[in-house]
Amino acid sequence: MKHALTFEITDRLEGTLARAGIIHTPHGAIETPAFIVGGTKATVKAITPEQIKEYGGQAVLANTYHLMLRPGTAIIKQAGGLSKFMNWNGPTFTDSGGFQVFSLGVAYKKGIDAVAHTERGDAAKAVKSSDQLVKITERGAHFRSHYDGQKLLMTPESSMELQHEIGADIHMAFDECPAPLAPPYYLVEALERTHAWAERCLTRHQELNKEHEKNGEPLQALYGVVQGARDEKPRKQSAAFLGARDFDGYGIGGVFETSEIPTVVKWVDETLPDDKPRHLLGMGAQPADLFLGVEYGVDTFDCVAPTRQARNGALYTYDGRINIINTRYKTDFAPIDGECDCYTCLHYTRAYINHLFKSDEILGATLASIHNERFVVRTVDQIRQSLKDKTFFELKKRFLHRYYGDTPPVGVIVE
Amino acid sequence: MKHALTFEITDRLEGTLARAGIIHTPHGAIETPAFIVGGTKATVKAITPEQIKEYGGQAVLANTYHLMLRPGTAIIKQAGGLSKFMNWNGPTFTDSGGFQVFSLGVAYKKGIDAVAHTERGDAAKAVKSSDQLVKITERGAHFRSHYDGQKLLMTPESSMELQHEIGADIHMAFDECPAPLAPPYYLVEALERTHAWAERCLTRHQELNKEHEKNGEPLQALYGVVQGARDEKPRKQSAAFLGARDFDGYGIGGVFETSEIPTVVKWVDETLPDDKPRHLLGMGAQPADLFLGVEYGVDTFDCVAPTRQARNGALYTYDGRINIINTRYKTDFAPIDGECDCYTCLHYTRAYINHLFKSDEILGATLASIHNERFVVRTVDQIRQSLKDKTFFELKKRFLHRYYGDTPPVGVIVE
Repeated sequence: MKHALTFEITDRLEGTLARAGIIHTPHGAIETPAFIVGGTKATVKAITPEQIKEYGGQAVLANTYHLMLRPGTAIIKQAGGLSKFMNWNGPTFTDSGGFQVFSLGVAYKKGIDAVAHTERGDAAKAVKSSDQLVKITERGAHFRSHYDGQKLLMTPESSMELQHEIGADIHMAFDECPAPLAPPYYLVEALERTHAWAERCLTRHQELNKEHEKNGEPLQALYGVVQGARDEKPRKQSAAFLGARDFDGYGIGGVFETSEIPTVVKWVDETLPDDKPRHLLGMGAQPADLFLGVEYGVDTFDCVAPTRQARNGALYTYDGRINIINTRYKTDFAPIDGECDCYTCLHYTRAYINHLFKSDEILGATLASIHNERFVVRTVDQIRQSLKDKTFFELKKRFLHRYYGDTPPVGVIVE
Repeated sequence: MKHALTFEITDRLEGTLARAGIIHTPHGAIETPAFIVGGTKATVKAITPEQIKEYGGQAVLANTYHLMLRPGTAIIKQAGGLSKFMNWNGPTFTDSGGFQVFSLGVAYKKGIDAVAHTERGDAAKAVKSSDQLVKITERGAHFRSHYDGQKLLMTPESSMELQHEIGADIHMAFDECPAPLAPPYYLVEALERTHAWAERCLTRHQELNKEHEKNGEPLQALYGVVQGARDEKPRKQSAAFLGARDFDGYGIGGVFETSEIPTVVKWVDETLPDDKPRHLLGMGAQPADLFLGVEYGVDTFDCVAPTRQARNGALYTYDGRINIINTRYKTDFAPIDGECDCYTCLHYTRAYINHLFKSDEILGATLASIHNERFVVRTVDQIRQSLKDKTFFELKKRFLHRYYGDTPPVGVIVE
């Protein structure tokens, strides 16, 4: 079977799982470690593709569930695929819609905290209930559209068909992400289902790729998605099961807290085949996620929090996060961060951005998003460079100390 | 008295009041006729200054009333003036706040249509009432902030002081814009007040410019604002009164309908001194406004409707206005207009923009605004060129016929 991508590892950091490399896709190369920009609905919110290129974004990740509902995957196919539809001249990923089974399912109306975060969660809520928009069977996930309540079924096969219509370079297998606080019997059941679905995904994906080959179209790549909640045995079991199959790479799903990276992500990456790329799904808003992720073998990250937080005025600086709406910034004529090299920091003051937010001006969302995205992309770029220079641990220590001061996220030890 | 700007007329169209020229300001030149981009709150909504340059915008017009309330003019002064505050490296205008006396005054909660449009209006509403946020005395306009109800007074003198703090290149005198349907006695009273205020503006402006000169700062320019509603006598009287005074140019206020241009604007421009630039305030969303305005002697226009309409999905094409939210565009893979050379039309389809609007994505507002702004700027650029080539009437006929078909705006005759 021909493959859509090749992965080349160029540097490793001894004594860790970290590596730097290059993923070659039909739409261009991605230097790893890399932060993949969140473009859920075929747009990076408030930002043009030229602005993404300018801040150093290498690839965009869209979501199959959202695009299936709007505008519909057939329209994206007719437009020439995701990359052409959104004018993003570079590599693309799609998530499978599996995470929506979680967020519209057991987490629906309760919030992710209630079913996933040990500190704040409630195990009783992390089981099935009638108050959700998803029902899961062996066949697939029976959804109701969050737009209009329309009944929909997504199966492993249909997820592959939808993703092939969208035409991103890298697809994710359709998985079930259970609430980490769900009871053990349910976690076992969900993991078995995820594995069975992964095999069905792979079969359908390979059929669709054969058609592409016949039509002279570029091949598409498929990542298996490792689940298994927070215990070592199921995580390693999942990584071994999927690792033995012919996926182009691996997504790591179901990781919710920074403190899980040195355990869960480590177990997974120790077990997965070393020569395939690994993507940590939905994590990357905390600098600690990026440093620990790379240290424990992650090649790519995605996260929509940097743009979402930007739209709420929460901006990243090397000295920690600030809220630009705070009155203290009204007369602050410094850039958001004097060391940042983004378009926003080179041309605008905190006072101006404070004014835009206070006045509900759209340009505020644009300038803030460019800044937060650049901050994250640049951090990962610096981490990549530090793997080549063998200065990773110095960078990690300096960066995290300065960013978090005395209050790093739970479970993160900054030596 | 030294002046902040010079105006050079390079071409004229015989038998009309039309001319092409160049306004030189301390922040650069404006080739006229020109469409001045609306930047009410020190931002062109949803657009970066680089995008304005790219679509050919030459100058930006902000509003004194809005900037006085947020962020406050002292902050803009501290930032180095409007141009620096908003990262707009080019000429700037400020409107005086006079129009807000109208829109928060007699038009408040009734809408402009009810007090200004002959076809739809109600003369009974076009007089003072208690349901408004403004009270006018000889001293000035007593406002209530539309944000928080705070009591404020704007006088001709304070408007000049505020505008000098904002530091735009071209200021407008503080005028009263009465409802055109107001009774004759009130129109006389309002015009006398506007003239008295214009003289007070000029005096205070000249004092402030002397201070700038002393401090080695760039001078600022002041336009008198001609009022007089819809009758020939008061309009000519106002143009003659203000034309005899040492203003750098003239704003034409109180024009609400395209059909007023061949009468009201003509009377004013016939009477004003020929060698000073003339700005038609708040008009320019209709191509007919631009063609008729130029024909009857207007040098610059401003209007926020192109960006406001864009945010509502109303997009300009050479064959008339379309609403991109319409379902027919869901699978339309053509650009908004195949003849348009804007960033949006070169890179995106109607289908994609339809998707962005249906999904409430901010990028939709950005792409739509760039398109509408480019359409208007380019139209005025074409008109300017047609004055040099002596092809104005051919262009006007061809353009308006195609744009309006058989339904041009009331009072517009397309021969």
